[in-house]
Amino acid sequence: MILCDVGNTFFHFFQEGRIWKESFERLQTKAEDIFYISVNPLAEKKLCQYNQNAIDLAPYFSLETRYQGLGIDRIAACKSIFDGVVIDAGSAITIDVMQQGVHLGGYILPGVTSYIEMYKRISPALDVLPSLSTELNALPQNTKEALGYGMLKSIIGLIDEASKEKNIYFCGGDGKFFSKFFAKGIYDETLIFRGMEKALEHYYEKNS
Amino acid sequence: MILCDVGNTFFHFFQEGRIWKESFERLQTKAEDIFYISVNPLAEKKLCQYNQNAIDLAPYFSLETRYQGLGIDRIAACKSIFDGVVIDAGSAITIDVMQQGVHLGGYILPGVTSYIEMYKRISPALDVLPSLSTELNALPQNTKEALGYGMLKSIIGLIDEASKEKNIYFCGGDGKFFSKFFAKGIYDETLIFRGMEKALEHYYEKNS
Repeated sequence: MILCDVGNTFFHFFQEGRIWKESFERLQTKAEDIFYISVNPLAEKKLCQYNQNAIDLAPYFSLETRYQGLGIDRIAACKSIFDGVVIDAGSAITIDVMQQGVHLGGYILPGVTSYIEMYKRISPALDVLPSLSTELNALPQNTKEALGYGMLKSIIGLIDEASKEKNIYFCGGDGKFFSKFFAKGIYDETLIFRGMEKALEHYYEKNS
Repeated sequence: MILCDVGNTFFHFFQEGRIWKESFERLQTKAEDIFYISVNPLAEKKLCQYNQNAIDLAPYFSLETRYQGLGIDRIAACKSIFDGVVIDAGSAITIDVMQQGVHLGGYILPGVTSYIEMYKRISPALDVLPSLSTELNALPQNTKEALGYGMLKSIIGLIDEASKEKNIYFCGGDGKFFSKFFAKGIYDETLIFRGMEKALEHYYEKNS
């Protein structure tokens, strides 16, 4: 049995603890029993054409929240924890707060690659790679540092503000990188898949 | 006598307290005595072709700083104050700290329009106009709020951190908007031009 999280830039797969990703152009995974969630209708279509028995797990999730239009990937990640902050750091960075199994709200920042792309578009003068090892306690003294500081400090500041004393659970391509900035940071690339496994239990309950 | 600040998206003009801007495609201002600064070589060329006597004021600035590659517009804005934080909120947002006439360093964030453009590029699901009136003391409960909160809170948080007890001087297209979030916020759209006037004094000293 294979789980698939269809994201904005990749298919992410999970099978018996193993995780891998495939590009939208080179989908290779074919199996009889694939369960998926998707935030990307076009890529979802590709997955389902290639795997005609693939089953969408979205209807088998329930999350207590007042938030309207919460992405299914965020719902899945939140379902995997009971209390804490969930960060999915990919092309966007989503920050969601869970308390006693209830989703209190969340917000969205651009991801690291989006910041870099954005800086570049603003001006040729900003088309330099931001420093990711900038000292965050001293004012920057050149463009690389100034861009890195602006980006990292705003992302880290906003995560910090949401977390207070809570544990912070990171997933996504840049999750490991950001988790290291927080004493209570935990990197777990299986977060979304563990949420999907809970939905899968509901699926089996209803279909057995 | 006319001053011109050649930016990333517009020509900004100043004459006897009056301020106006012109697009790169529709430059109209022609005068015998134009003094300018520029962060945009292509637009600068246009200005100088149309105004063959235009004089670049950049060589007439001096600012004590360790920062390498500080844009001439940031230097000009910083020269206009002695102590405080200078924010130029345009296509990029630059944040510079001045103390006793010395530039201590600064950093760069994307501007509001860049955030909106970036969110849109990440995913069609994020192609909504972020709320600019989001309550910043409550967790967002939908996508519009989540995008607005992520953007505003990171910009405001980073300005806050730089300012501490200092006055905060805002210029740029979104300067007025952001100045309202700060008790010590002062909006002054002449900031860069007042810095240019100081350089102009040096020019006249050397050329009289």
